[in-house]
Amino acid sequence: MLQGKVLVAQGGGPTAVINQSLVGVILESRKFAGVKHVYGSLHGISGIVNEDFLDLTQETTANLELVAGTPCSGLGSTRDKPNTKYCREIFKVLKAHEIGTFFYIGGNDSSDALKILAEMAVSDNYELRCIHIPKTIDNDLPVNDHTPGFPSAARFVASAFTGINQDNMALKGIYVGVVMGRHAGFLTAAAAGAHSFDGDAPHLIYLPERSFEMNQFIGDVKRVYEKHGRCVVAVSEGIHDKKGTPIITKLSKIVEKDAHGNIQLSGTGALADLLTDVIKSKTGILRVRGDTFGYLQRSFLGCVSDVDQREAREVGEKAAQFANFSDRLSGTVTIHRVGNYQVEYCFSKIETVAGLTKVMADGFINKLGNGVTPKFMDYLRPLLGSDMPRVGRLNPANKVKKILNK
Amino acid sequence: MLQGKVLVAQGGGPTAVINQSLVGVILESRKFAGVKHVYGSLHGISGIVNEDFLDLTQETTANLELVAGTPCSGLGSTRDKPNTKYCREIFKVLKAHEIGTFFYIGGNDSSDALKILAEMAVSDNYELRCIHIPKTIDNDLPVNDHTPGFPSAARFVASAFTGINQDNMALKGIYVGVVMGRHAGFLTAAAAGAHSFDGDAPHLIYLPERSFEMNQFIGDVKRVYEKHGRCVVAVSEGIHDKKGTPIITKLSKIVEKDAHGNIQLSGTGALADLLTDVIKSKTGILRVRGDTFGYLQRSFLGCVSDVDQREAREVGEKAAQFANFSDRLSGTVTIHRVGNYQVEYCFSKIETVAGLTKVMADGFINKLGNGVTPKFMDYLRPLLGSDMPRVGRLNPANKVKKILNK
Repeated sequence: MLQGKVLVAQGGGPTAVINQSLVGVILESRKFAGVKHVYGSLHGISGIVNEDFLDLTQETTANLELVAGTPCSGLGSTRDKPNTKYCREIFKVLKAHEIGTFFYIGGNDSSDALKILAEMAVSDNYELRCIHIPKTIDNDLPVNDHTPGFPSAARFVASAFTGINQDNMALKGIYVGVVMGRHAGFLTAAAAGAHSFDGDAPHLIYLPERSFEMNQFIGDVKRVYEKHGRCVVAVSEGIHDKKGTPIITKLSKIVEKDAHGNIQLSGTGALADLLTDVIKSKTGILRVRGDTFGYLQRSFLGCVSDVDQREAREVGEKAAQFANFSDRLSGTVTIHRVGNYQVEYCFSKIETVAGLTKVMADGFINKLGNGVTPKFMDYLRPLLGSDMPRVGRLNPANKVKKILNK
Repeated sequence: MLQGKVLVAQGGGPTAVINQSLVGVILESRKFAGVKHVYGSLHGISGIVNEDFLDLTQETTANLELVAGTPCSGLGSTRDKPNTKYCREIFKVLKAHEIGTFFYIGGNDSSDALKILAEMAVSDNYELRCIHIPKTIDNDLPVNDHTPGFPSAARFVASAFTGINQDNMALKGIYVGVVMGRHAGFLTAAAAGAHSFDGDAPHLIYLPERSFEMNQFIGDVKRVYEKHGRCVVAVSEGIHDKKGTPIITKLSKIVEKDAHGNIQLSGTGALADLLTDVIKSKTGILRVRGDTFGYLQRSFLGCVSDVDQREAREVGEKAAQFANFSDRLSGTVTIHRVGNYQVEYCFSKIETVAGLTKVMADGFINKLGNGVTPKFMDYLRPLLGSDMPRVGRLNPANKVKKILNK
């Protein structure tokens, strides 16, 4: 049963809908009579160690609904990865505040931290419910059909490439858009959601699930440019060579790593600049432009999939319900696709997702490794939301007969 | 009177609402009984020279409405700047097709091209109506209170910085966002539209209207970081030193110029990378990130100011009406703010805008040259549209009392 004081925190990279999950947990937990207080830890597990808690039981529902619609982690986030000493500090604080349930909204790294906490709690004989609530724009958590945050980020990427397609038709040239995604290419692949008319962008998509060969890339770009007089490319920031070396490290002077040992890929335009420089020098084509979508794709205000909003809210609600009704002490809420298109939620073991990475299935990637399959499009479409704006074009058949025949 | 065959074209950089103006011209022109055909030139004036016309009289209203809602130039665009020979070619084609009115939707460079055409038409005794319809995300056309395209791009920038503010609060550090704008800082200044709570981003705004001093910049960033534990900066791509040398040229190996002699500023992440590198080395702060908003800010699907949509449509409609009812052969449609908030449209002389650049008034920029004034906020607010999403935050006053007093 969910009772006493419960604690909720947010970890890892923010998403457009992570506050929906937060508010789902808060409002649902507050419904259980045994729950006296819902605390929120500021900046993830680092807030526990520092005793930085907000009493969310004193928030109005109207304000919580406003927060739910606000992108990024309302409680703040952290990249901290706890070791044994860190976990002892956490337990000390949880015990002092008599907290029996800890909801942690996060991705792979956050679920891994929660797994360590849950294991230590068992070996310490400390009765702590550890409930993981999934979120990640990378969409790389196993077991889940997809993860909250991905659909809205995918909608951003698809909307961006839809606009870029129009821009590139108006002023022709080559365009390279670099999309977030270290190991999993789902978000980059979502660029394919921009496709409407024949010949629409993106014409080429490069994913971290395949090795990136510069010569093949240049050949692909040339071929598309000769056919369409233009070329729009979606590239994952995590593309790497056959040996697994990220393409971006071939350029960067300083390689920055986070607490999890991950190389910094975002927050720099280096990869797009590297690729556009190579295209210019190898093809002689002049108008070559590159953009790095950066932090906009996970935080942009007002670009949200309504499907994602609803599901992000539901995983929060379900977490509170599982915590109350399940016999199992710890677990993770997982999303499963049923029918077309519906979802069900399960309470799965944390070990099934913790620290693990799901990448795109082979059936989602085309044979040449430079695009996606219709199967992926079927997977993606319902996630983008119910009201993706449509684009139109002037009918190219209404050509006026030339008089001077120039 | 508007009669016979009329021609419409789009020039310069696309905007989110430039097709509203196009459709405004088409539908309004089609209402005049004397108008037999409305032609569209593909890729601006280059389409005239090549006789690449579409007969827009054969478009359905429903499809035109779909095109109106689609970002970027539906007819395609061009950066061509016509010289005397180019203009002669244009006249040859216009005469062959018996076109008496030419509507050109564009910014400074396009209006300048139209001015040259209009002058040559007069000296050639060729009766040609040349009607300029304003658009530019740079908002730098004189006479106009603002230009169609700017409000939607401003909304994009404000929405981006609203999300970035949330992201930067969740995972603290320094963030630099580079916004389009060569000579005029309006679009960068629109980042201030993200401001909601005290302490919200952007904390610093650097505009091309002021000289950019690296030492002052670093000092500003340090000061904000010490106060808030974080710092979000909006920087115009056109920032330059005291001598007027763009900061970006201090880094770039190859300086690319377009047909108008403009240095390429967009389509590369170089400036953001330069600034974040300097911040890292001069402050020792580790988490420093930079994004270049690039082409997304003028083409993103689904981020449109409803005020901008309506006005962009109206300048197209008014162009057709001025062409029909005015005694003057050529002119430009200009937007004038009246009351709070309403606009009126005038038919002004092309010379008042052609090739000229308006920059931000001194009263819009703060004394230190690193932010905007309340007067600018009053100017900006109604342009962003009627339904800018609000953000919420958890009440920081509901702190839980520490027990361990860590």
